[in-house]
Amino acid sequence: MMTAAPAPAKPTLTKGLEGIVAAQSSICFIDGDKGVLSYRGYDINELAPHATFEETTFLLWEGHLPTKTELEEFNGDLVANRELPPMALKVLKDVAKSMGPMDALRTTVSALGAGRADADKYSVDVDRAKAIETTAQLATIVAYYHRIRFDKELVHPDPKLSHAANFLYMLTGKKPTPAAERAFDVALVLHADHDLNASTFSARVTAATLADYHGAITSAVGTLKGPLHGGANIEVMKVLLEIEASHEEPKEWVRHQLAKKRKIPGFGHRVYSTLDPRAIHLAKLSKSLGEQAKETKWYEMSLKLQKAMKEQKDIDANVDFFSASSYYVMGIPLDLYTPIFAVSRVAGWSAHVLEQHGDNRLIRPLSEYTGELGKKWVPVSKRSSSVVEAKAKAA
Amino acid sequence: MMTAAPAPAKPTLTKGLEGIVAAQSSICFIDGDKGVLSYRGYDINELAPHATFEETTFLLWEGHLPTKTELEEFNGDLVANRELPPMALKVLKDVAKSMGPMDALRTTVSALGAGRADADKYSVDVDRAKAIETTAQLATIVAYYHRIRFDKELVHPDPKLSHAANFLYMLTGKKPTPAAERAFDVALVLHADHDLNASTFSARVTAATLADYHGAITSAVGTLKGPLHGGANIEVMKVLLEIEASHEEPKEWVRHQLAKKRKIPGFGHRVYSTLDPRAIHLAKLSKSLGEQAKETKWYEMSLKLQKAMKEQKDIDANVDFFSASSYYVMGIPLDLYTPIFAVSRVAGWSAHVLEQHGDNRLIRPLSEYTGELGKKWVPVSKRSSSVVEAKAKAA
Repeated sequence: MMTAAPAPAKPTLTKGLEGIVAAQSSICFIDGDKGVLSYRGYDINELAPHATFEETTFLLWEGHLPTKTELEEFNGDLVANRELPPMALKVLKDVAKSMGPMDALRTTVSALGAGRADADKYSVDVDRAKAIETTAQLATIVAYYHRIRFDKELVHPDPKLSHAANFLYMLTGKKPTPAAERAFDVALVLHADHDLNASTFSARVTAATLADYHGAITSAVGTLKGPLHGGANIEVMKVLLEIEASHEEPKEWVRHQLAKKRKIPGFGHRVYSTLDPRAIHLAKLSKSLGEQAKETKWYEMSLKLQKAMKEQKDIDANVDFFSASSYYVMGIPLDLYTPIFAVSRVAGWSAHVLEQHGDNRLIRPLSEYTGELGKKWVPVSKRSSSVVEAKAKAA
Repeated sequence: MMTAAPAPAKPTLTKGLEGIVAAQSSICFIDGDKGVLSYRGYDINELAPHATFEETTFLLWEGHLPTKTELEEFNGDLVANRELPPMALKVLKDVAKSMGPMDALRTTVSALGAGRADADKYSVDVDRAKAIETTAQLATIVAYYHRIRFDKELVHPDPKLSHAANFLYMLTGKKPTPAAERAFDVALVLHADHDLNASTFSARVTAATLADYHGAITSAVGTLKGPLHGGANIEVMKVLLEIEASHEEPKEWVRHQLAKKRKIPGFGHRVYSTLDPRAIHLAKLSKSLGEQAKETKWYEMSLKLQKAMKEQKDIDANVDFFSASSYYVMGIPLDLYTPIFAVSRVAGWSAHVLEQHGDNRLIRPLSEYTGELGKKWVPVSKRSSSVVEAKAKAA
């Protein structure tokens, strides 16, 4: 009693929504063929040499660069909200030793709204207040997580330090050099937004049911974790360490891996058909950080790997590629690379939640049904055990 | 120094992805014009009179109804996993008094993977093991949340009871009548899946980065919370209580509200242009539960409201409409209606995560950029304070 599935309501399946325009947005512009990325009309090449993370966050949320007064106020709000609310700290302390950093971050971000009278509210003003606090606190969660898991005393935020410097200070207990601070700040600027990437899109899908800001950011953290998204920067560093251990030249290593059809992380991007403009700036960072640390081998190996991948597979580096060697020579543990991506991207997630709630429409696509139809109910006592029998036969 | 935005890469913006086919799926078929819903080829009208939640969950995950042996094993697995892992229970106890039920559920589901060696894994086998545990435990989280917030002793799961009966028992401390158990079981069956609804879609967006099962389900819980999605059943009950308090006839009440352009929850659906087939079964439940409780006024008021909305606005009831009055006469607190939706929908979320991970592609759409381009960096000391001045003038 089965009939064939009817023709789908819409003819074209676009798996992964590739090429589908899901929203209007005035936050981020990407030209993937020309390798152009801009935030609110400012090309990333304008921002990377100059902007701080704080300025960039203000720009993404408000649509214009802050005046001196606006920036002072904004910095003050961020600084004032760096310490974690007691409930979030309690949850973080509970889970830090039994969860990976992204899982602990997801759980703690989800707990950030505890005790708020406006926990279920979703107006632009409420979202903005939550966004300021969460952007400040997300950095603290990552740093505290790392201290707690290794039984180190918490290093509390220093209000005199910038967002970038304060994060490195809370993580390591040492104030960074101006060069390290600036390098890390640039990395934060470069990762701050990227249009409807998967984590940002998931934040918008959640926000579009008029769910609250913290729910949307929790979805984004969970989505960023995946190795096809934020998790890729860890995989890049694992590859560099593997090449080192193999004693092969990157060129040879690539040849062997491509022969085995292995996918090499840090290369290729859904949106860019050319070099990711962020990779150019991150390569400079990787070089200068390597020189400062007197350990340029990871940068040099990265360059060779990049060249080999271009020659042998005609594929370009993406944002994850040079961030790996940059963070490595800064002494940041591998498993914090993706959480650090979140420390930055929360600026973009917040901008998109504000935009979504400002002009909302439920995000709800269709599927193309590929199964059978018209099956009739059979009581359990009369059901064929053919599947079970087939399994038994096969065993 | 601004240039106009270039033409978007793709001409058609589909806001909210309405009508866009985002995936192939063999789980759920909907014909929104004819009011048809089926799970794995079984029309909801075949399932609602017969199936238990456990059978329905097996069907959604495995694609066929379980044999007697399969069902016994599956029930056994669910029963064996009802108690919460200690870390999740700890987190729930931390947050239950300072978070709403959906926020506490989101946070606790996020903590379910604590201590698992396979927390980052995403194979179908790993997902299935997590899905069994989470489906069992999500019901426990909701019941325990309610007990903890009111300082009541936890009622631990009873392995002799079905999933539906055990949930009501853990929530209230009393074993339900067979009629109440069956009514609640049918409600669970009716809510178990609905194709790419927003929460399920968010689970797939998260899973498609190859993030883990618990991350995907956490996103889904956060997305379900919104009043445009799972949060709507609470709003329906608030409306019924409001009509009661107004002393107006539903017909008059609707006329007054529509004149004020108010959106009435529980009516209309992105996918159905006719009566939601689930509403037909839920109306029967609302009636029989009302009769059992000797309190039919909410069912009767619902019928009148449904008629008035059809006559005055030509709009049909959806799944949320009769679930409100059903849960109300069962004595379930209003703010648990949406968590109970999650108790059921976790079956569908899990089926979709399994399907997504079984044939994965990153879900990453594009946006249409509507802002300006070509802005040039200006140091903070030289930035115009025109925005600030404009604000000051306006004030």
